[in-house]
This record gives sequence, structure tokens and C-alpha cells, in this order.
Amino acid sequence: MKNLIVASTSTIYNGNYLDYLTDALTEFFSETDEILFIPYARPGGISHDQYTEKASKAFEKLNKKVVGLHSFQDPVKAIKEAKGIFTGGGNTFVLVSSLYKNQVMESLREAIFNGTPYLGTSAGSNICGVSMKTTNDMPIVYPPSFKTLGVIPFNVNPHYLDPNPSSEHMGETRETRIKEFHTQNNIPVVGLREGSWLRVNGSSIVLEGEHNARIFKQGKDPVEVATSTSLSQLTL
Amino acid sequence: MKNLIVASTSTIYNGNYLDYLTDALTEFFSETDEILFIPYARPGGISHDQYTEKASKAFEKLNKKVVGLHSFQDPVKAIKEAKGIFTGGGNTFVLVSSLYKNQVMESLREAIFNGTPYLGTSAGSNICGVSMKTTNDMPIVYPPSFKTLGVIPFNVNPHYLDPNPSSEHMGETRETRIKEFHTQNNIPVVGLREGSWLRVNGSSIVLEGEHNARIFKQGKDPVEVATSTSLSQLTL
Repeated sequence: MKNLIVASTSTIYNGNYLDYLTDALTEFFSETDEILFIPYARPGGISHDQYTEKASKAFEKLNKKVVGLHSFQDPVKAIKEAKGIFTGGGNTFVLVSSLYKNQVMESLREAIFNGTPYLGTSAGSNICGVSMKTTNDMPIVYPPSFKTLGVIPFNVNPHYLDPNPSSEHMGETRETRIKEFHTQNNIPVVGLREGSWLRVNGSSIVLEGEHNARIFKQGKDPVEVATSTSLSQLTL
Repeated sequence: MKNLIVASTSTIYNGNYLDYLTDALTEFFSETDEILFIPYARPGGISHDQYTEKASKAFEKLNKKVVGLHSFQDPVKAIKEAKGIFTGGGNTFVLVSSLYKNQVMESLREAIFNGTPYLGTSAGSNICGVSMKTTNDMPIVYPPSFKTLGVIPFNVNPHYLDPNPSSEHMGETRETRIKEFHTQNNIPVVGLREGSWLRVNGSSIVLEGEHNARIFKQGKDPVEVATSTSLSQLTL
């Protein structure tokens, strides 16, 4: 049975890495002492080792050991044998390219369908959707496909940002970008604000955290849904 | 001899479409009464006709007729015969996909090298660089390549935005994103603020408009350059 936390961000304003998720993660990873960390998204370009060290420090507080997927000779086997998986944020194009290059996209999908607890933050959440076409990241590398895990039946937009009425910047708002997405695609999109996450249990998907989420469907006006709302019915 | 205006944005805050460029465009397009408009980027998902109408209205003030590339049966011939070309902003992924789909990327590059005056704004400027890997846009379609016109020897980041010190948003700043680009690529990047443009004349490239630009090179700290600075030497 699928078992995921799909979080908008790893870190909220004025918080430390993963701190706001401590209670949720204690329960979520209660059946394992070791977490397989996928460091491929390399935020700010840091190395796989540096990134794994950062995740390790955060999980020390929960008495969990963290091992980096890059340290295994056989990453497919590592994913199959993992008792818990965490994919951190960074650049979604780099992450998806690395998942394909290391041929682990399919085994990661299988592990999630087989019930391995999976935590994603930011880019690690983007890949849970049908495609990575609603990432905010810069396309710094060309991945072989924008198709991602598809373990939830819609896309997410992490770090969802409301328009700033006092902004003088003329670049597109997040809402405009998602509207453009829907001129080319019919997959629903959940705008997940920082501090929100999706809790997936089998076919149940529930919005958690302190904020509303903004739901975008092709040809419809966006709607706000409150925390604790079920999004299980959000499909095409 | 190459002859381009590569602008950060079509519209500045509190301004009308292309208004801030009126003086520059009057001189730039002085040798033609008709401008070929490439409406492929479809900002906000508007149709090619709607977008061409918008460009037409702006150029009416300069007594120029605007014709949309989508209205030609043979777009390659239209580009070859054009006396002036304008590619508007919108979504760079949609623009690049359409340029490849309609097989005009190469003929557009040739026209520019042959001296056809070319105006780009936003996405239309992104494609002047070596690749589209420094666009801010959402990857709503999968283009066959991120390679673009390469009529300037570096990349641009249009709508360049300085970090907002009062922001509580935890998404990456523009500078962080470009730093991530340089972990994967060695092409220099010019962060073009809204109101700035590059004036290309043959091998001469000069920063115009009221703002500084921010120059990013792999392995170096970013530097600010003042308007009127030559960027002709900005190569690998």
C-alpha cells in the first residue's frame, strides 16, 4: 500500500531543515532505523556527500541513520531493499536526469507501490506527480523525459506562491504559469504552500499542514481547499 | 551583419506594451514597414491570432504593419523574406518546441546572421542565447532540444530579479538558480533586469537601458556592469 509524505518544502521560514515535519516523520518512519536518501537534486550544486550529510544531521534527532543512494554500487538493489526513502529538493531537472541515468525511476516507482515509506520535499515531491512539468526549477540540464513517478494522479507545484500585490516585477505569477500549463496539459495541479504536505495512504490522499492548497483544473477557476481535505478524487 | 535588440521584457511596470522601447525601435526598424511576428510563445496561453493582434497594436504607433508567422503556409520562406522579425515573450518551452516543430530554428538563425533586424523580448530573448537553460519558465511541454539560436555567445536570464530581503519564501533565488546552472554548464549568463536590453551590431554587444546587468561566470563571483558597457568579450 502506498505510503508517502509529499511536502512542499524541506524548510519553512525561520525553521531548521525538516524541523516542522518532526512529529509526522517520527510516526512515518517508525518501522525503520535507516533511511535511503536520494541526493541527486543537489540544491545550490552541493555534492551528493554534502547533501547526504545534511539529511543525516536532520535525522540524527530522530535516531535514524541516513545512507546516500550514490554510495551504492547497485542503486536498483538499494532501492528495492530500503525500508524508508527520502528524496530531497534542489533542481528537478538534475534529479530527473540522474534518476533516468542511474535507471532507478522504475524501481523507485515499484518500491513506492510496494509500500516503502517515501518522503519527498520540493523536487522530491515534484517527481511524485505524473510529470515534472509544473516544477519551478531552471532547466539547467536536458532530461530524457519529463515523465516522473506518477504515484499520485495529479501534479504538484511545490513552494506555491501567491501573487504579491505590491510587486513591480513583470514576470509571470505562479498562477499564470500553471494556467499556461493547462493550455498544453489536462492533469490537475495542486499548489502546495510551504508548510503543507500531502499524506498518501493507499488510495487516500489528504492535505496536511497549516495552509490551504490551491487546486487548478483545466478549464476551471482555481479553488482553495482547507487542510485535512481529501484529494483522493482529484483525477482527470 | 547581425542586428538585434535582446530585451529583458516587453513591458515595464506601469508601462504599456513595448512603450519603453519606442525610440530604440523607431531607429531599429527604420528600413521596413512590415514586421514578421513570431507568436509561438503564447503568453498566458493566448492564441497566435490574439498575440499577433497585440503586437500589431503596439507597432501601429510606429506605422508598421505586423504579420504573424503562423499565417504563412511556408514559414521558412516567410522568415527568409522578412525585413524585420520580432519574437514575443511567453513560455520558452512552447516557443522552442514550436520553432523546432515548424522547422524554422535554422532559418531564423540564418536570417539573423544575414542581418535581418531581430527584436526579442523575454522568451524571444532567451532563444538568442546558446541554450534555453536559463529561462524562468515552467516546462509545460517537452522540446526536442534545449539548444537555441546561439546568435550571442552567452545565455541571458530575462526578468532578472534581485533577492527580496523581506521575503519569507524559501524557494531558490534567481542567483541560486544560475549558480546551479553553472554546476552543469560553463556558458556565461547575463541577468537582464526589466528595462534593460542588449544591442547587438555585428560582433558588438552593448548593454542598454536604465539598469546595471548582473554577469555570472562559472567559478567566479557575479559582477555588476553599468549600462553602455560592452559585453562583446563575454565568451568562454
